[in-house]
Amino acid sequence: MELYFADPDNIHDSHATFDAFESQHILKTKRKKLGDLLNFTDGEGHFFEGIIVALKPALKVEYHLKEKNLSSDFKLTLAVGFIRQQRIDFFIEKGTELGIDRFYLFASNNTNYYTENTSRWQKIARQAIKQSLRYYLPSISTIISFKDLLEKSSAYNNKFIALQNSTNTMMDIIRDQSFKSGEDILFVIGPEGGFESFEIDLALKNNFIPITFGKYRLRTETAVLTAASYINLLRT
Amino acid sequence: MELYFADPDNIHDSHATFDAFESQHILKTKRKKLGDLLNFTDGEGHFFEGIIVALKPALKVEYHLKEKNLSSDFKLTLAVGFIRQQRIDFFIEKGTELGIDRFYLFASNNTNYYTENTSRWQKIARQAIKQSLRYYLPSISTIISFKDLLEKSSAYNNKFIALQNSTNTMMDIIRDQSFKSGEDILFVIGPEGGFESFEIDLALKNNFIPITFGKYRLRTETAVLTAASYINLLRT
Repeated sequence: MELYFADPDNIHDSHATFDAFESQHILKTKRKKLGDLLNFTDGEGHFFEGIIVALKPALKVEYHLKEKNLSSDFKLTLAVGFIRQQRIDFFIEKGTELGIDRFYLFASNNTNYYTENTSRWQKIARQAIKQSLRYYLPSISTIISFKDLLEKSSAYNNKFIALQNSTNTMMDIIRDQSFKSGEDILFVIGPEGGFESFEIDLALKNNFIPITFGKYRLRTETAVLTAASYINLLRT
Repeated sequence: MELYFADPDNIHDSHATFDAFESQHILKTKRKKLGDLLNFTDGEGHFFEGIIVALKPALKVEYHLKEKNLSSDFKLTLAVGFIRQQRIDFFIEKGTELGIDRFYLFASNNTNYYTENTSRWQKIARQAIKQSLRYYLPSISTIISFKDLLEKSSAYNNKFIALQNSTNTMMDIIRDQSFKSGEDILFVIGPEGGFESFEIDLALKNNFIPITFGKYRLRTETAVLTAASYINLLRT
């Protein structure tokens, strides 16, 4: 199946209009024509099936089917220290494929990079939901300080911080704990330089569970995908 | 810790010489000097500690410590259908970080790409073992046909083929099966176009266990990393 994306603001009265990027892809690359069938999502859980009814001034589809898909039984948030742009792009793409529901990018004491590029990341995430046939677009935002991240963490039932020296493994978590439907999970992965000990202390005081992904040193973006893969084990 | 790489052919009589790429990195980027301490591996399980004793004609280190590290208790091979070069580079890097011991790249009926670039991939893997502080370089080779892959598979105790429609999940495998030390695991991940039904039949006849990574469509390279993450759960 091929799945396209229409902004929810551009869907009403049984019609959706597509932006220039998506229209170009549908008409030029995929060579769709007036009257052709098209499947699309709004990234808010809906699947639509419709017919192309206009090409100009914007590609327009009249839909005859609209289905609501349930989101996964628990939400997964990854909070990740800023790293190089290219590596952020990468974990946004792969992490979206793997079903991360929310990304926070944060700065901490050992942060060496900073880039605020939400619109670029959202474009990448949009491509990734189309690819993986998901109907929910993750939210992506930046948090300036580690302290703000800890404040946000109070909304989560299950909070983990990746620390190489921890003795808790994900296998322990999988064996011992069952996440309840509706409970939210937060994973915090540090920047390349890791966390300072005062930051770790703060996290522990805020009821984070330290967790190791093994004795080898993983790059930040690799740890993100490992966390997402682990959580998917619990979802399948 | 910083870890460097010396080709095992260039290590003898308590001395190692480094190639141009590695020397440049050690001397120019890391600004190491005569008399400095250096940690390195040969990618065959050894960790060395030594002192820089010459800069020309090649960077030379005399080592005073040589330790053998055991390889992981079971070996993981990923056989992956050819995909775009950039995406192969990517899963070689990340898969090496995650402890894949052997990569096979194979062609099957729906293969649209072919590239034979072993020396490039080995360079990427070399960087990745340094990054993740691993002492074993994965082997990387290409297999021309799916049939040849099935022949090679006879050497493995545990054989899995990723199929989206399968009902076996990795969670079932983790719960039910314990891999014995010394047993080898083979995961086969198809190319972008997936497998033909005759290929799936052949795999099943060859005792492959079909396994799903969930209901969402993962890109080939994402499935590779998911498989590696899952197996790491059993290793930690």
